[in-house]
Amino acid sequence: MRGKSYVERTLTANLEQLFNPLSIAVIGASATAGKVGHKVVYNLVENGFPHRIYPINPHAEEILGYKCYKSVLEVPDEIDLGIIAVPAAVVPQVVEECGKKGVPFLIILTSGFAEVGRVREERELVEIAHRYGTRIVGPNIFGIYYAPAKMNATFGPTEVLPGNIALITQSGALGIALTGKTIAEEIGLSAIASVGNKADLDEVELLEFFAADERTKVIIIYMEGTRRGREFLRVAREVVREKPIIMIKAGRSKRGARAAASHTGALAGSDAVFSAAFEQAGILRANSADEAFNWARALASQPLPKGRNSVIITNGGGVGVLATDAAEDQGLHLLDDLKLLEELFHEATPEFGSLKNPIDLTGMATPRDYHLALRAALGEERIHAIILLYSMGAEQVPHDFAAAIIEEYEGGKPLVVAMLGGAETVEAVRTLNRAAIPAYEEAEEAVGALAALYRWKGYRGRPAHVREPKLKVDWARIEEIIARARKEGRLQLLEPEAKAILKTLGLEVPEYRVAHSLREAVGAAEEFGYPVVLKIISEGIIHKTEAGGIRLNLRSREEVEGAYKTLIAAVGRSHPRAPLRGVLVTRFITGGTEVIVGASRDPSFGPTLMFGLGGIYVEVLKDVIFRVAPLSRREAREMIGKIRSAALLRGVRGEPKGDIKALAEALYRVGALAVEVEEISELDINPLRVMAEGEGCLVLDARMTISEVKR
Amino acid sequence: MRGKSYVERTLTANLEQLFNPLSIAVIGASATAGKVGHKVVYNLVENGFPHRIYPINPHAEEILGYKCYKSVLEVPDEIDLGIIAVPAAVVPQVVEECGKKGVPFLIILTSGFAEVGRVREERELVEIAHRYGTRIVGPNIFGIYYAPAKMNATFGPTEVLPGNIALITQSGALGIALTGKTIAEEIGLSAIASVGNKADLDEVELLEFFAADERTKVIIIYMEGTRRGREFLRVAREVVREKPIIMIKAGRSKRGARAAASHTGALAGSDAVFSAAFEQAGILRANSADEAFNWARALASQPLPKGRNSVIITNGGGVGVLATDAAEDQGLHLLDDLKLLEELFHEATPEFGSLKNPIDLTGMATPRDYHLALRAALGEERIHAIILLYSMGAEQVPHDFAAAIIEEYEGGKPLVVAMLGGAETVEAVRTLNRAAIPAYEEAEEAVGALAALYRWKGYRGRPAHVREPKLKVDWARIEEIIARARKEGRLQLLEPEAKAILKTLGLEVPEYRVAHSLREAVGAAEEFGYPVVLKIISEGIIHKTEAGGIRLNLRSREEVEGAYKTLIAAVGRSHPRAPLRGVLVTRFITGGTEVIVGASRDPSFGPTLMFGLGGIYVEVLKDVIFRVAPLSRREAREMIGKIRSAALLRGVRGEPKGDIKALAEALYRVGALAVEVEEISELDINPLRVMAEGEGCLVLDARMTISEVKR
Repeated sequence: MRGKSYVERTLTANLEQLFNPLSIAVIGASATAGKVGHKVVYNLVENGFPHRIYPINPHAEEILGYKCYKSVLEVPDEIDLGIIAVPAAVVPQVVEECGKKGVPFLIILTSGFAEVGRVREERELVEIAHRYGTRIVGPNIFGIYYAPAKMNATFGPTEVLPGNIALITQSGALGIALTGKTIAEEIGLSAIASVGNKADLDEVELLEFFAADERTKVIIIYMEGTRRGREFLRVAREVVREKPIIMIKAGRSKRGARAAASHTGALAGSDAVFSAAFEQAGILRANSADEAFNWARALASQPLPKGRNSVIITNGGGVGVLATDAAEDQGLHLLDDLKLLEELFHEATPEFGSLKNPIDLTGMATPRDYHLALRAALGEERIHAIILLYSMGAEQVPHDFAAAIIEEYEGGKPLVVAMLGGAETVEAVRTLNRAAIPAYEEAEEAVGALAALYRWKGYRGRPAHVREPKLKVDWARIEEIIARARKEGRLQLLEPEAKAILKTLGLEVPEYRVAHSLREAVGAAEEFGYPVVLKIISEGIIHKTEAGGIRLNLRSREEVEGAYKTLIAAVGRSHPRAPLRGVLVTRFITGGTEVIVGASRDPSFGPTLMFGLGGIYVEVLKDVIFRVAPLSRREAREMIGKIRSAALLRGVRGEPKGDIKALAEALYRVGALAVEVEEISELDINPLRVMAEGEGCLVLDARMTISEVKR
Repeated sequence: MRGKSYVERTLTANLEQLFNPLSIAVIGASATAGKVGHKVVYNLVENGFPHRIYPINPHAEEILGYKCYKSVLEVPDEIDLGIIAVPAAVVPQVVEECGKKGVPFLIILTSGFAEVGRVREERELVEIAHRYGTRIVGPNIFGIYYAPAKMNATFGPTEVLPGNIALITQSGALGIALTGKTIAEEIGLSAIASVGNKADLDEVELLEFFAADERTKVIIIYMEGTRRGREFLRVAREVVREKPIIMIKAGRSKRGARAAASHTGALAGSDAVFSAAFEQAGILRANSADEAFNWARALASQPLPKGRNSVIITNGGGVGVLATDAAEDQGLHLLDDLKLLEELFHEATPEFGSLKNPIDLTGMATPRDYHLALRAALGEERIHAIILLYSMGAEQVPHDFAAAIIEEYEGGKPLVVAMLGGAETVEAVRTLNRAAIPAYEEAEEAVGALAALYRWKGYRGRPAHVREPKLKVDWARIEEIIARARKEGRLQLLEPEAKAILKTLGLEVPEYRVAHSLREAVGAAEEFGYPVVLKIISEGIIHKTEAGGIRLNLRSREEVEGAYKTLIAAVGRSHPRAPLRGVLVTRFITGGTEVIVGASRDPSFGPTLMFGLGGIYVEVLKDVIFRVAPLSRREAREMIGKIRSAALLRGVRGEPKGDIKALAEALYRVGALAVEVEEISELDINPLRVMAEGEGCLVLDARMTISEVKR
């Protein structure tokens, strides 16, 4: 994570002047059509920017009718926003001048910085700007558009359609293409913010702005990665309670390729952590740009459903079936009160139609029948959402059906429409969308959009995120154990050390003792009672089982004696140079269910927690779940329920129910540890044995790695 | 399954006259525009049908310039094809007349038969027709279109675009809508066949026709259900070796709702069986109509890749990343020979571009760079498929890029294109598609289409399906055991009966004996050796464990004696009226992995086989796989590898490898049993214990249900 300096922390994050400037300087403005520096001025002018524009170009007199200046310093006026389109080599000088001029915000369009490896040069830009209190968007972006200010400060398409969806994009090229798409498909935007290299301002500040922006109803983000995952998560969590955020997250495959260092590490840091964070924040993750915009149409225009009952109304059985399949896939609930359905829809439905849900008005249905059916659905309180389908029949005029829908729909509950057919239905779909009724060309798209609305409702309705008070444990003792190991040059803690830390954290660890002789081992065993386990302790041996360093289920003094000897001998053979620090003696625990709890540090999100059932469930079935730490206790409980094999812990087929309460507490505490003790770079409790309800969770083995230098 | 009568079996399945008729009678032709009987004549005429058209209408003189006849019997000519558009009540009479006239094929557009419950009336139509050797398409359809014959015998859209994709649709309304879509999106069709109620001809015969049809390159089927699953599977398996079949299967949710009767039954009969059959046949299953047509574009125009190496060429990093994610999701392999990539693409790529795969030509790329890059990719043998992406930049003309691609592409290896942007890129995408280069508006769509091409290649490349010779086992003995149970009025076989059948089938069943007294039980135990298991035998007790009817791991004579008594007592308490037929004594087996093998009868596909790991894997994780029986031995082996938890059987974490060979043989044999012995309606081997490699699979428990009447 990027640390923020004192200067940075005192910089303004009020983006008012960025989005609503009263004067803009375009540095590198050009009189030559086709150049970026020309297009930006052109877009500002053509879009009707109502305030002052100052083209800066030492060699031109005027551009598009605006007087040119040789430098921002010559402009006889304050400048709220500077747009930089000069070559990369000149950018630092321009930033310096803008700083001197007191320009609060800069949009740096120029590329050729961190994205081509020039990280130092990029950092310098930010340092120069911050010296003057100036904030930067970019570099390597295509600009910013903001509908309320009539400001198209981009070199992308000119005629952006004003609306209420804000688009934040990390990729400039894709942003331009997506903007083109919104124009072609008549999707209105409140804002476009290209963030590119995110040298200074990024999604976090923009989210905060759009959250407060009255014009914006939905926020779409195209993201490839972030360095400020935790801040993003914190802000997004709040924003989602007001406005839906839709994420198109690219770069799964790249992250997925991260080398597998250890058991937990192999699964963490991947796209799974992003997904986890999005789920924690309540962000809707779309699989493609099309899907994102499809959802946004519904989220931007439709009220939230007041309950779970949806109806599908259709004039074609086939498309009704496709919608029903999609509804089940997406977890939508179709109203099945047959008596009510008959009562409501019999008037619009011929005898050979269907009054079950989907309501099949049949191919004979006229626009009048759509009127009737829609009116019935809108008027009934027990119906909370409507999926209206139309399959174009021979000799029909789809526009008449669209007109009937527009006439009848009066809001109050969400309506999504799909119209299937040819060019005329495509036009009818447009007509509906112009009337702010979300309409699509496929049934699956309409259902998907309604499902997104329901998911957002679910996220909004969650109890607010609670940051639990700092856990009261002896943190100093934990730091002390770590400090001692580091002093001895060990980054891999010994099992007794890891267990001591977890015990201090408040986890239950079965009694253990480190024996340095056969006598001590037998003594401990006699004291604990049989059966016991012996394990070798050595920083040189990570995989104890493979090394012959573990002996389980020893039932008597004799067995302990024999095992001790063979264990020492086996380890001597397999790891002749490993320093032996003794033999750990502990009770052999039977029963319960084995789970794994891991913690590691994600490059984007910092401390993260992993949980899954032990053995095959993690290794073969990859049935694990990630969460960004820390968790609230409620999140810890929910985390457990989200693995596929959770039923095992709830007791299936007469097995005893596991102590889920104790497990949740353990997860919560490990999450707190991962956040509090920054030196722990990796932690793996494997297994944690979940005993029957009321009997707790036992740490049977644990590995812990600490970072080289205290951060 | 529908049985075929002798008459039916001798009917022609040569559909030549249906698709290439030299004379068509439209019975119920109408002079009134807007009526179905008018639209069909209109479509035939407007589409330029070059042969004779006879409108049949007792009240009209001529329709659209064609002389009318009062009945087909009055037509002074042979009629190859009759299209019936009269009201339902009159249809039987018309079919009779057509039969008398010797019309070989009838298209019955009229609805109001089985789809509204008039099953008997529909059956009568077929009976009448078959008496004269006449075959029927429909009823309840919108007709048939066949491009080579210039025949639009539908009441759907008039101007269908000729091409090489055949569309078979069960839903008429959806078919009309999809046809409209193909016109709007310029997708060329070789044929449309609406099959509706499928009273007589269905997908099976149509598939056979399109398989041989030179004009058709891809077949898309919209299916809601089938009564002839096995025939469909048999024919599709063959067709797929020549032409790809894409399936849009609707009605998942309806089937999924089938009541869960028994352990296996709860999972079978669902959409999972359809999916299994499609996988067995090598059919590509699409999730939506859009996806189906997207795939069809590529499958209809592109050659199969000669190897697995794909390259992504892009002018935008963002869209390249999205495509890379999609490629990984879809299992495509991206060439990663960096030296080769640099050699090939350095000329087209600026210094700050990327020569890794994706090749990023950057936003500066000109049409000439696309020329160069495409030429390099086409010319290199180690590249087998090309994904070409274009993200519209400012001031660019997408058409120029499309033109460059069209000019450069010369076939030889598959190319898919995605162009992102606004209205101009949509037009450029159309231009490419007109030139038979599959192009899309989203990167994910292009990648998905190429992935479909690869999947089809995989299906085509599978060894031909082998029907194994009939298994040599004592089938008579199996029939005899079943006959005896039935004679006694028992449909649920007793465990020893089920085990005897499986033993006769060649499965390994640990030695067991039915004891009728304590003495016999002890005798058997002493003979087999300890530990042993005791199980109650009673047709009245299905869930033995819950009834207290099983005692495991009995290690001595004393334990057997005690267990016998408590078992009898427990069962007496839990099932006082269940007839006790003795106690089954068998060895207690330890080790190995428990799996479940089930067989049941699917309403569409007949005998099907289910396999999964025992316990939680089936119940909680639903990690099961279905196959339509019988299987070849190769299919049985493949089936095992396809469950998510298969790694458990291959030996993970030092566990012994299971005897997969024996397991495959067992699956193969159970598949043969399900097919050979029709009386078995349900079979559940639970558990089958898979022992270590070379040590076989043991049937530990089995349930078998037989049908009430011998079919």
